[in-house]
Amino acid sequence: MAIRLNAADPDFEARFVALLATKREVSEDVDSAVRAILADVRARGDAAVLDYTKRFDRLELTPATLRVGEAEFEAADKAVDERTRAALILARDRIRSHHERQKPVDDRYVDALGVELGARWTAIEAVGLYVPGGTASYPSSVLMNAVPAKVAGVDRVVMVVPTPDGVINPLVLVAARLAGVDELYRVGGAQAIAALAYGTETIKPVYKIVGPGNAYVAAAKRQVFGTVGIDMIAGPSEVLILADGDNDPDWIAADLLAQAEHDTAAQSILITDDAAFATAVEAAVERQLKTLPRGETAAASWRDYGAVILVDDLANALPLANRLAPEHLEIAVADPEPLLAGVRNAGAIFVGRSTPEVIGDYVGGSNHVLPTARSARFSSGLSVLDFVKRTSILRTGPEQLRALGPAAIALAEAEGLGAHARSVAIRLNL
Amino acid sequence: MAIRLNAADPDFEARFVALLATKREVSEDVDSAVRAILADVRARGDAAVLDYTKRFDRLELTPATLRVGEAEFEAADKAVDERTRAALILARDRIRSHHERQKPVDDRYVDALGVELGARWTAIEAVGLYVPGGTASYPSSVLMNAVPAKVAGVDRVVMVVPTPDGVINPLVLVAARLAGVDELYRVGGAQAIAALAYGTETIKPVYKIVGPGNAYVAAAKRQVFGTVGIDMIAGPSEVLILADGDNDPDWIAADLLAQAEHDTAAQSILITDDAAFATAVEAAVERQLKTLPRGETAAASWRDYGAVILVDDLANALPLANRLAPEHLEIAVADPEPLLAGVRNAGAIFVGRSTPEVIGDYVGGSNHVLPTARSARFSSGLSVLDFVKRTSILRTGPEQLRALGPAAIALAEAEGLGAHARSVAIRLNL
Repeated sequence: MAIRLNAADPDFEARFVALLATKREVSEDVDSAVRAILADVRARGDAAVLDYTKRFDRLELTPATLRVGEAEFEAADKAVDERTRAALILARDRIRSHHERQKPVDDRYVDALGVELGARWTAIEAVGLYVPGGTASYPSSVLMNAVPAKVAGVDRVVMVVPTPDGVINPLVLVAARLAGVDELYRVGGAQAIAALAYGTETIKPVYKIVGPGNAYVAAAKRQVFGTVGIDMIAGPSEVLILADGDNDPDWIAADLLAQAEHDTAAQSILITDDAAFATAVEAAVERQLKTLPRGETAAASWRDYGAVILVDDLANALPLANRLAPEHLEIAVADPEPLLAGVRNAGAIFVGRSTPEVIGDYVGGSNHVLPTARSARFSSGLSVLDFVKRTSILRTGPEQLRALGPAAIALAEAEGLGAHARSVAIRLNL
Repeated sequence: MAIRLNAADPDFEARFVALLATKREVSEDVDSAVRAILADVRARGDAAVLDYTKRFDRLELTPATLRVGEAEFEAADKAVDERTRAALILARDRIRSHHERQKPVDDRYVDALGVELGARWTAIEAVGLYVPGGTASYPSSVLMNAVPAKVAGVDRVVMVVPTPDGVINPLVLVAARLAGVDELYRVGGAQAIAALAYGTETIKPVYKIVGPGNAYVAAAKRQVFGTVGIDMIAGPSEVLILADGDNDPDWIAADLLAQAEHDTAAQSILITDDAAFATAVEAAVERQLKTLPRGETAAASWRDYGAVILVDDLANALPLANRLAPEHLEIAVADPEPLLAGVRNAGAIFVGRSTPEVIGDYVGGSNHVLPTARSARFSSGLSVLDFVKRTSILRTGPEQLRALGPAAIALAEAEGLGAHARSVAIRLNL
């Protein structure tokens, strides 16, 4: 049973602050183990990657079998049923259409002085995509990471996935092919991150690494940051639902549990202005938990991190929502636009009673890689922008240099940078 | 004297790879010292900040004197001469105009199925700006960091600067005021980063921290990443100049030295197709070094990291430039557009013989905070985008849910997520 808070209670602020401060992740200290693996792969290349794969995944590979080959893609293709394949294709197409709109536009213009300024966007040449193995090996995540990279124009999208005991999820292979992944290697953990960052004889290096992973993968990404770019380090998933009393309690309970089933560290929060509705949702959650395949996980998440918050008016939920800065925010009311307008911090917003967050996980078209752990206060979900970079362009002719040069010289001198001043002055015969 | 490479030499590729791999930064291991400071400030707040300021900056402060007050801003204002102030205002106005064009535009649309999708951009509420003390305390950097934050709409721009022995650069105060900085605290080092990230009694926390700093500041930024957002970790500055033989060797030498004077670890590289010109530039560098106030620094940088590369045709400089991915790239030829079109990896490009990079440092209008150490392969210079975040918006009505729901259910089932499937199915009476 989740905790229940009431905004009218005198101790509400203290309890809400405690909720905000809840640490849901156990941070394992794996830094030194990871450092050793990175150094080893950097020094020994393929040989080290193969050694670690044998040790951690119980799998004997050779440089020739590191890469997943055409025959395996074909076998995977045959193993996937038509209904699932059609769903993957629908998802891929919708993600692609939506992300096409995110492509940034170059800008080049001449200002009033005659100075030419510009910004030119180019795709990153090579990107690595980490996909976890085992039960967290989601084909939808392959699409959500790889499709925006290809839309951006990345030349080489290189995917890595651990295959413990040689087992690989055929859906992941099919999704990789549908998304346009260019190379796929069966290697995981810190050794995979090292191979992507530094390159080996078989795996050419990439310039940026994205995708979720366990503590080792996260630590490895942090450590190679600088050598390559990385995306955000994702934490456990979370949802905040703002709902009035006119919702079906079973619908809202189902949405809370859809987050909770991800992980015992996931977090589901309901804010409502209707105490009877809150009680009905709590009862529906308990009822539904009994028939969920992942009921044990969901129950633990709901018990340890779930919360139901009562407010007198849903408008007063907005400041709380903005402080929580949830990864996912559902607004389940008849007229959601006024509440929507007041949200400043959220990864993604699902508007109205008929938009369960799960639609966004798969087929809405928007990205499901979103900022967790309150980081929507300062960061955004994955998009095409994560796979491009901007080069600024500046051009002054002799006339513009005469106009701007003296100010540049003044500032260079004020900063004590004589060669800076000279580089301008010499062109102006000063 | 810088090294000289010739692309026609048989050992060129090996020597160029060595140049690419040159490590210019000594990485000090300050992680554990920084970890202790962060924990202490987190636990003791102001008291810890004051203790470290006393120890490292030899400055006794109280919570009341931590913040720079109105009287000090006014005194600084009086201390700055009119020429420098006018130059700062020109720079501020040009940076502002250019960055106004970077503000991203919201997108909201309805697709063919009737699904409503959108992206809404909002400013980060509070941002911290670190400014180094001493000789690296540049007013131009205050403008380059703070102006884009205010253009983005950040409510609170909080600046911190160490003031060893109480000395503060009046130009930095004037620049802060001109840029619209909201709060300024005289504290530096890891303790300042901790105060910004966790907050103290006096300094309210921010959500993102930007700005350059020494090894302690960089390590502290890495460690608080996640709690807050951070910008890139900047390395030593660098320039690559592509120049034909028709340039004045003294102009190009001055540009090479403008980078070199920053830091003994800075790097200046010239690529030309004219051996006699290369020799003339080398001679001009040696000549100019003799009369530079920061000649010793510039000489060390040029000797240790400078390079002159001969190619048979400047078009063949492009693949080398893209591998170097320089922070700054000058294209000093009569018709620069064809070369410009071939550049994929660079932080900023300065086009034509009359655009010394220094114009971009101060008054061009584009940002001078740019990716170093080859990171232009995967990242961009500072812009308004660094101070905003995107929330995605999705809305399906009952009809769209009927159209998309079955595919979502199929994927949820394929991923073994029963509560995900139920959250959609329950709304479709499935």
